[in-house]
Amino acid sequence: MTYLNELKDGDRISSVYLCKKAATLMTKTGKEYMSLTLMDKTANTDAKIWDPNSEGIGEFQELDYIYISGDVTVFNGTIQINIRRLRKAEENEYDPKDYLPMSPFDNDTMYSQLKNVIDTVKNPYLNKLLKSFFIEDPDFVESFRKCSAAKTVHHSFVGGLMQHTLTVTRLCKIYTKAYVGLDHDLLITAALLHDIGKVKELSQFPENDYTDDGQLLGHIYMGAEMISYHAKEIEDFPSKLLSELQHCILAHHGELEFGSPKTPELIEAYALHMADNTDAKLETFIEAVQGKERDKWLGINRPLGGNIRRTSEWTVKEDAST
Amino acid sequence: MTYLNELKDGDRISSVYLCKKAATLMTKTGKEYMSLTLMDKTANTDAKIWDPNSEGIGEFQELDYIYISGDVTVFNGTIQINIRRLRKAEENEYDPKDYLPMSPFDNDTMYSQLKNVIDTVKNPYLNKLLKSFFIEDPDFVESFRKCSAAKTVHHSFVGGLMQHTLTVTRLCKIYTKAYVGLDHDLLITAALLHDIGKVKELSQFPENDYTDDGQLLGHIYMGAEMISYHAKEIEDFPSKLLSELQHCILAHHGELEFGSPKTPELIEAYALHMADNTDAKLETFIEAVQGKERDKWLGINRPLGGNIRRTSEWTVKEDAST
Amino acid sequence: MTYLNELKDGDRISSVYLCKKAATLMTKTGKEYMSLTLMDKTANTDAKIWDPNSEGIGEFQELDYIYISGDVTVFNGTIQINIRRLRKAEENEYDPKDYLPMSPFDNDTMYSQLKNVIDTVKNPYLNKLLKSFFIEDPDFVESFRKCSAAKTVHHSFVGGLMQHTLTVTRLCKIYTKAYVGLDHDLLITAALLHDIGKVKELSQFPENDYTDDGQLLGHIYMGAEMISYHAKEIEDFPSKLLSELQHCILAHHGELEFGSPKTPELIEAYALHMADNTDAKLETFIEAVQGKERDKWLGINRPLGGNIRRTSEWTVKEDAST
Amino acid sequence: MTYLNELKDGDRISSVYLCKKAATLMTKTGKEYMSLTLMDKTANTDAKIWDPNSEGIGEFQELDYIYISGDVTVFNGTIQINIRRLRKAEENEYDPKDYLPMSPFDNDTMYSQLKNVIDTVKNPYLNKLLKSFFIEDPDFVESFRKCSAAKTVHHSFVGGLMQHTLTVTRLCKIYTKAYVGLDHDLLITAALLHDIGKVKELSQFPENDYTDDGQLLGHIYMGAEMISYHAKEIEDFPSKLLSELQHCILAHHGELEFGSPKTPELIEAYALHMADNTDAKLETFIEAVQGKERDKWLGINRPLGGNIRRTSEWTVKEDAST
Amino acid sequence: MTYLNELKDGDRISSVYLCKKAATLMTKTGKEYMSLTLMDKTANTDAKIWDPNSEGIGEFQELDYIYISGDVTVFNGTIQINIRRLRKAEENEYDPKDYLPMSPFDNDTMYSQLKNVIDTVKNPYLNKLLKSFFIEDPDFVESFRKCSAAKTVHHSFVGGLMQHTLTVTRLCKIYTKAYVGLDHDLLITAALLHDIGKVKELSQFPENDYTDDGQLLGHIYMGAEMISYHAKEIEDFPSKLLSELQHCILAHHGELEFGSPKTPELIEAYALHMADNTDAKLETFIEAVQGKERDKWLGINRPLGGNIRRTSEWTVKEDAST
Amino acid sequence: MTYLNELKDGDRISSVYLCKKAATLMTKTGKEYMSLTLMDKTANTDAKIWDPNSEGIGEFQELDYIYISGDVTVFNGTIQINIRRLRKAEENEYDPKDYLPMSPFDNDTMYSQLKNVIDTVKNPYLNKLLKSFFIEDPDFVESFRKCSAAKTVHHSFVGGLMQHTLTVTRLCKIYTKAYVGLDHDLLITAALLHDIGKVKELSQFPENDYTDDGQLLGHIYMGAEMISYHAKEIEDFPSKLLSELQHCILAHHGELEFGSPKTPELIEAYALHMADNTDAKLETFIEAVQGKERDKWLGINRPLGGNIRRTSEWTVKEDAST
Repeated sequence: MTYLNELKDGDRISSVYLCKKAATLMTKTGKEYMSLTLMDKTANTDAKIWDPNSEGIGEFQELDYIYISGDVTVFNGTIQINIRRLRKAEENEYDPKDYLPMSPFDNDTMYSQLKNVIDTVKNPYLNKLLKSFFIEDPDFVESFRKCSAAKTVHHSFVGGLMQHTLTVTRLCKIYTKAYVGLDHDLLITAALLHDIGKVKELSQFPENDYTDDGQLLGHIYMGAEMISYHAKEIEDFPSKLLSELQHCILAHHGELEFGSPKTPELIEAYALHMADNTDAKLETFIEAVQGKERDKWLGINRPLGGNIRRTSEWTVKEDAST
Repeated sequence: MTYLNELKDGDRISSVYLCKKAATLMTKTGKEYMSLTLMDKTANTDAKIWDPNSEGIGEFQELDYIYISGDVTVFNGTIQINIRRLRKAEENEYDPKDYLPMSPFDNDTMYSQLKNVIDTVKNPYLNKLLKSFFIEDPDFVESFRKCSAAKTVHHSFVGGLMQHTLTVTRLCKIYTKAYVGLDHDLLITAALLHDIGKVKELSQFPENDYTDDGQLLGHIYMGAEMISYHAKEIEDFPSKLLSELQHCILAHHGELEFGSPKTPELIEAYALHMADNTDAKLETFIEAVQGKERDKWLGINRPLGGNIRRTSEWTVKEDAST
Repeated sequence: MTYLNELKDGDRISSVYLCKKAATLMTKTGKEYMSLTLMDKTANTDAKIWDPNSEGIGEFQELDYIYISGDVTVFNGTIQINIRRLRKAEENEYDPKDYLPMSPFDNDTMYSQLKNVIDTVKNPYLNKLLKSFFIEDPDFVESFRKCSAAKTVHHSFVGGLMQHTLTVTRLCKIYTKAYVGLDHDLLITAALLHDIGKVKELSQFPENDYTDDGQLLGHIYMGAEMISYHAKEIEDFPSKLLSELQHCILAHHGELEFGSPKTPELIEAYALHMADNTDAKLETFIEAVQGKERDKWLGINRPLGGNIRRTSEWTVKEDAST
Repeated sequence: MTYLNELKDGDRISSVYLCKKAATLMTKTGKEYMSLTLMDKTANTDAKIWDPNSEGIGEFQELDYIYISGDVTVFNGTIQINIRRLRKAEENEYDPKDYLPMSPFDNDTMYSQLKNVIDTVKNPYLNKLLKSFFIEDPDFVESFRKCSAAKTVHHSFVGGLMQHTLTVTRLCKIYTKAYVGLDHDLLITAALLHDIGKVKELSQFPENDYTDDGQLLGHIYMGAEMISYHAKEIEDFPSKLLSELQHCILAHHGELEFGSPKTPELIEAYALHMADNTDAKLETFIEAVQGKERDKWLGINRPLGGNIRRTSEWTVKEDAST
Repeated sequence: MTYLNELKDGDRISSVYLCKKAATLMTKTGKEYMSLTLMDKTANTDAKIWDPNSEGIGEFQELDYIYISGDVTVFNGTIQINIRRLRKAEENEYDPKDYLPMSPFDNDTMYSQLKNVIDTVKNPYLNKLLKSFFIEDPDFVESFRKCSAAKTVHHSFVGGLMQHTLTVTRLCKIYTKAYVGLDHDLLITAALLHDIGKVKELSQFPENDYTDDGQLLGHIYMGAEMISYHAKEIEDFPSKLLSELQHCILAHHGELEFGSPKTPELIEAYALHMADNTDAKLETFIEAVQGKERDKWLGINRPLGGNIRRTSEWTVKEDAST
Repeated sequence: MTYLNELKDGDRISSVYLCKKAATLMTKTGKEYMSLTLMDKTANTDAKIWDPNSEGIGEFQELDYIYISGDVTVFNGTIQINIRRLRKAEENEYDPKDYLPMSPFDNDTMYSQLKNVIDTVKNPYLNKLLKSFFIEDPDFVESFRKCSAAKTVHHSFVGGLMQHTLTVTRLCKIYTKAYVGLDHDLLITAALLHDIGKVKELSQFPENDYTDDGQLLGHIYMGAEMISYHAKEIEDFPSKLLSELQHCILAHHGELEFGSPKTPELIEAYALHMADNTDAKLETFIEAVQGKERDKWLGINRPLGGNIRRTSEWTVKEDAST
């Protein structure tokens, strides 16, 4: 395929793209035309169909993969495609991976790592609870594996939620070894479940936007409620254990002003908050500087709090393992 | 010895204590007497010498270890010792460990772990810089090994600074493995040096209080300046590397309002801030709840932000390794 | 009965009081005694049993109503009762209303007003939902009718939650008439249910303190979850209606920093927040100034934000109806 | 008349509009032309007079109603009128209501409701004070009836100040019935007078912008001072009553950071603040969502604090009166 | 006289003191006695009259100067006077300066400096306005000369308001020389008048506390209103000049959250704010450290924002004039 | 020379300008051209070289002074110069003062005033320290005299740092006379040195932007460190004096959130902060209003906190000296 970020003035192209948006408009002279946003993993590009009722233009909808032929022009300094022919693409004509941002880590691998972590949770109630989500609920599993961890800023790609969940869980695992007095099973369970509400808060790709429920209720509330319903299905699930687990979910943003209705009151809740915050901030930093010049200041980055730049390269590269 | 927290009304004791404070006062009837604060690792206790000029009372000063004989009484509900005889103790009559709060980790072990970490820093300038502090400067090493990491709240014991430094360094080491794009040598060096200014900010035990310079300049400024002087002694130390390292020190409190004159602008500075904050908060939590009842709310904890309590005990105890 | 705020030095009394706290202590000379806090609606008073093993002292526990005989003395300027005889009181020997702070409004009247409001909600789903709580769930009804609306500050008395709920609902009813575009049924339902989580957040009188779940999860979360479970029992309850109703509950504190995980995004949520805040603040003001001198400044009142005093009396009193 | 929001490319029009702005400019070739902003209640539209010295263009000024003939064109996607003929309109050629945003409530009706409320204030001093403004000062009455309650955000239309004043007064009336201890006459007087400073703070329509005094002194200060001068004219007006009334005016924004130099220290001041805030916020919400699609999120609304949308329609519509 | 800070156990005294407070109380045995607070410029001291109805105890009231004879004892470590005889003192028996805290600067000198500054204001309206307060209004002048500038914290002594006003005016005078574009007459007038509202906000010594109007309206509002009334008496006082002057008064606290209803919008208003803030903060610092040890940290000082101490002495003392 | 702010459509010019930026670009048709930003003290102007390889276009770089010949045109309402010939200018063809913003005060005069102030510092250590910077370090002196005091907002011109330093020092000098207890020599030394770190924080004109070290370390840290190194060269410099001086530098922004790692703990530090803030704010105000219309509101000015305008002109102009 021809990636959208490679198009040049004068090109003639025939390729499949994802149609992110489509609208029928009217020229000043009263003639109908269509304005589309085409998308692949490299860019979003405007396209026009000046003669939408011509024979060469087939039926299609927003979010369809479409096969188009057309001419590339530059208008006001921006690339635009004038589409001459268009049809819905067949499933075998494209690979979704070319069209959506993806986690750099393999989805199957991450899922199997996640299942391994579940096995380390020995408390029978917590273990059953984790399996009720990650093993026994196929709809949940499918959503969870595809979902991003945020609309923008960090982990905003397919698999982002699972990648974030795994890193947070690994940091928590470290904490249980570095500090006495942390309950391993409670903390690891909370880490694995802390953002499950996001599968309801964010729609799936390519939209990846807040749902109505996401906007009204938020992933913190929805995640804690999901845990309540699942725990109710497990015989004799201890009510105090459930409350402590739900507290970890409710408090994981750390402060009321960041949307947690409770601040962390248990050490596991505090530890989860630190792990979540560490991964969110470092991943945000990495995504902000990667591919940038080392010597260039990039300006104020709101979530990180200040002006940032990539670090200079000084290290004499050798093995740096401990 | 008889620990101070075991004294009862009517006891007669003869034992060595650390004299934390001593003052000569006047009774309402115009008679001189002395008021002392005695200290061991279990408690601080008031003591009086009603006849300071008697033969049995030898010469001594604040912070001396003193051997006393006296009677225990209860006054206004508080234990008080009326001292009859007193002399400075010989060095072989006491073990300082009985008198000062100590890190639960062995001091020699921690120091040798720290030296091992230095060996993993391969950048020759940074490696030399670390050794100029932790190997080649015996005064610094002695202070660093004894110093606490804070006057109160967390790590407020002998060896606290080294314990905190090691844990922060370990978390940073984990980050370099979990995230791409972190400079191992810069981050580990910054982690090892981030709080060295505390050897000037806090006086040694048993005082463990802010020094005049600590109050006026703070450990953040003093630490960065110490690095500047040491780096000047290393031939060809790259100036940009020095600036980036000093930036990590200056920014490690994360926000201006917490006393950093710069917010983290490099990813290593951000990572150091997260590790420092994680250890400070989790250690504060651990020290606040340890030994407390599991079901009892302990009230608002200012540094942690809310009401806290120990977690209930649910875990079926088995091996929880990954 | 003899009210506790009427006791004088030298009185001999025989009366029933509520035993709020009881502890067995030791005198300095090693003798056991008991220290009690007695309570009626007028005051809390210390009492001592110097001879707890005497024949005249019967079995009892904290929160029992106890019949005592004893002598009133003044110790350090404070009234104290030295108890000579004590036994648990029979149910017919006391009226709980004499021992607990009560709403100035009649409990039965308020409950019947509340049922009348439910009838004005015509949306069948919302009407069923309200009845599932306020009519068909006797345990909930009993708790709701007795519960306070807060541990301190305002409505901290038996019936306080119902009184607050009714006033908030009345203000919301006014809003639906004063403004176009407010959904009457959604708003009135949200008003009636907005604080139901408090029956789980606060324990019943005389304790009236945060429960463990109240501290860990809070009434905002628990109230929204309770609605979820009840709505699930109602056939075809529209999911969007449920989300909008739950949003009103979650957002009713108005701002994240006051513990709402969402700010009001629907006008009914905003209206509920204004009504809740209006009643909380005006009731707090009323309770703070009532009974105080008109000319005296009472000092800073934290929830109200400043120094307050009662208003002077100027009005020529006549009928002031519109 | 032809409303400005109905114009289409190619129309020829002859109609009266309000000339909001007019400026004489120079083309790049050095020729004079005029650029106008025409206004009616539906829109603001640009217009040009390319030959301002032609015979058909009469004398006029900004804020005149002008009768124009011209051609409608589209330039850069925006409607523009090229004016061929222009003259000042006669008073009988237009109705100001077509040109300015108006309150949905009838101005005379609101004014007579306001006078009725004054009659319910029985305190003779307060009653006289209210009449000195709302009955006996015709200039004030005229300004007050036309003034908006704000430059933008809410009640930004002719009659807005009176509409806001009435609603705030009604809410306060409700409070005097729902709560004991509120002084009816003081509160109602304060409600009626709370924003009178706005007749000096904002200029009249069509400008409706901050005056120089409005910017320098603000309506809170000016309103309190106006009351001082009027009260001085009333014999024996009690000075403490005046201070308490002025306090209500000064404190009605509730917090220092919203421009009140005092926080509410009397319950009437607090009640006024709650009523003012309730109407400001709910009216802001109503104006923000009215006419919008029910399912569409409208983005962050600064004064309201978050993302907002209209509520879905669920209510089974029947009579909902209590 | 015998100053209160010089009394010792066992002294017999006969001297005049100011009676700041007096209350009649009852002993536990039901006998009446009186408890007084005596005051001079060095201290406040408790005194008791155990036999208030004896012949030797004359009539007196709070705030009278009283001549007493009595015995000094120490009770609970505090000095107490047992009064045997008491009568109101004659005016010639005491000098008020011995009883109230006084500005270190001579009152007459300050007043004549202030009059000199008025002469430098050449704008005839502003000059007349200043004279209408500081020359032609004897009641105002008397209050202004005696008033403090604050209840506590800084300038809390007789003459404090005039001292503060003079220093602020001097700083403003400097600014008019150091910066172009400052209107000398407007700024100096604003400086002289900026705190005149304090003569109504604070009661005179020895009470020196907030008045009811001071609490309800504040000196910022009252000062601006006083200027309004005075300016109205001056023929043709330009209204814009009045608004700009009042703005300077309203804005002189600099930020809304410090009680100014407007932030400084004119450069003279900003300059006045800087001068007022400079004098308030430096005088607060001086009063906080004077007489303290140079090497001792004094703890957090709220208005100044941190821990403070006196500076060490290093300067080689010679003439340091420029 | 022809100043850039005087150019008109159609002019032909030949003059020297400073080339602030230069970039080689490609037209849509693939032809190379150059886009330049030319600068003098009156304006920045775009210029194009459509035929960069022609013989008339000589070698040059960004920040060169260049002699150009070209034609002035208006494009999209903006002036643009089409350059036909270009060469680097000789040093004698231009005067840098015509090209860079300059302090209104003469540089030599300011420097000699600064040296005079140094002579008033009698403490021998501080006097030596000041001379080590301002007399004996020619590189520092040259940078200090040219540097601005800020990138934007205030004193953003050649000599700005020295002008700001002098005014702050003068205000401090006034304080030492107005208040007892200020150490003249410490305060004046701190004032003179408080912003020396800016010579490293900001690059020289015409760039005048943050350096990499300025961004990473900031002028507060760098200034304090510079003082440390200089003091080390002075025999017997008292360490406590050095700490107090460095504290003044570290604390001069007054609050942590403005980048000071310590709040002012000594009165000299507080005084320096007030002087620095006064000059920064008043100079910002002056630069914001100068040349603006007196009656026009200029909108919100972020550093000053609100909407601002120039003051009206009322003063009867006569001599206003004290």
